[in-house]
Amino acid sequence: MNFKLTIQYDGTDFHGWQTQPDLRTVQGELTRILALIEGGPVVVHGSGRTDAGVHAEGQVASTTLLREISPEKLRAAINGNLPQDVRVMEAEVVPDDFHARYSVRHKTYLYRVMNGPVMSPFWQRYAHQEARSLDLPAMSACAAMFRGLHDWTAFSAAQAEVENRSRTITHLEISERRDERAHARLIEFRISADGFLRYMVRSIAGTLLAVGRGELDRQQVKRAIEEGDRSIVGATAPAKGLTLLNVCYK
Amino acid sequence: MNFKLTIQYDGTDFHGWQTQPDLRTVQGELTRILALIEGGPVVVHGSGRTDAGVHAEGQVASTTLLREISPEKLRAAINGNLPQDVRVMEAEVVPDDFHARYSVRHKTYLYRVMNGPVMSPFWQRYAHQEARSLDLPAMSACAAMFRGLHDWTAFSAAQAEVENRSRTITHLEISERRDERAHARLIEFRISADGFLRYMVRSIAGTLLAVGRGELDRQQVKRAIEEGDRSIVGATAPAKGLTLLNVCYK
Repeated sequence: MNFKLTIQYDGTDFHGWQTQPDLRTVQGELTRILALIEGGPVVVHGSGRTDAGVHAEGQVASTTLLREISPEKLRAAINGNLPQDVRVMEAEVVPDDFHARYSVRHKTYLYRVMNGPVMSPFWQRYAHQEARSLDLPAMSACAAMFRGLHDWTAFSAAQAEVENRSRTITHLEISERRDERAHARLIEFRISADGFLRYMVRSIAGTLLAVGRGELDRQQVKRAIEEGDRSIVGATAPAKGLTLLNVCYK
Repeated sequence: MNFKLTIQYDGTDFHGWQTQPDLRTVQGELTRILALIEGGPVVVHGSGRTDAGVHAEGQVASTTLLREISPEKLRAAINGNLPQDVRVMEAEVVPDDFHARYSVRHKTYLYRVMNGPVMSPFWQRYAHQEARSLDLPAMSACAAMFRGLHDWTAFSAAQAEVENRSRTITHLEISERRDERAHARLIEFRISADGFLRYMVRSIAGTLLAVGRGELDRQQVKRAIEEGDRSIVGATAPAKGLTLLNVCYK
């Protein structure tokens, strides 16, 4: 049976999603536990990698098991063996041709920024702090320019091994609200695309933060998007502010 | 100058508020850092103790320093030396007769319960999980009985050293909402009183949870409140669900 697993993890203490020898990774933990349940080797496919320190509220994995087990029992068996910073929220039986990576339609990431002088202990793992004041209208005006199909080379890791670096951003929205628990303003960048290059969301977030601080203007951002001018792109924002929110399938 | 400090901490890795030899406590950390800033001994008064594992979004402390320093600089100096799981959110100069403990008018605690089959990694430090379904209307009906002046001996630690165990609960409210991030129902008990005995909030929360599971009825709770019948009080709910929300002063 082919299973779809919806997974949450606090990425703070993981070396990212992908299995790596001798390092604690989410795929590594899941593969280890599923092999115990299956009583044999298993392959766990993720919707894509997340980097060290990046969180997930709705990562998706798929795995085919020979063992007959109900989704409820599978979820309970996995969670009973996982450490507390990762959890299978839902398990479902899916058609054999479902593949967590190849069947992706689009993904949504959230980048969280706490904008205030002091970082609340309750957010320090899950948001990036910016103490300076930020020009939200300027950031939102720039955000609109990111929508659409572009080559995102200027906004991705230099060493990215992919050939085609064109992706379509279908949605990029900046919202803000007072977070009473944090005694600060919470700014959230919500970004959806049919695919992402490595560091792409963090690079876009870093660029928009530079706009908010008045270090970059609209014309410079336009040039980076349209001409791939890498030199003016803002610094990659820290991993801990980034969360994979959900993955949408065909 | 006398300072009032409003403090947040993630209680997970602290042995509570109060200074104890060789143990990591919030008062211990603050006293150590303030002594460095003062260049001499300091006394840090808290509004009251919190137990190991209990969190604070608005604990209050007061301390008198000989050193001349602005509240903004004091806050920055303390936070620059504190570990990330505790932060001074606000510092203010207050009249000399302000005392974080003796000047308290009332305090408010929040007890958080995640009601769902799987505990989200993002809440596992800050909420208690209850997988069984809970009868909210029955819990709310019982909650009303807790308001007012009562002797809370049945709802406090047997070893409590205090003589007078009468306190007035001015507010006790149960709210619920769907928490999208947690994929579960978040139930919050919000309770205000002119003072609390040790384990009092956790004992009340544990009792209301027992009502929600159908293990205790209204008459039994009434007897516990009015006659101090300790035998039927529900188990003390775990520390991690409890947060000191704020302290109100005269």
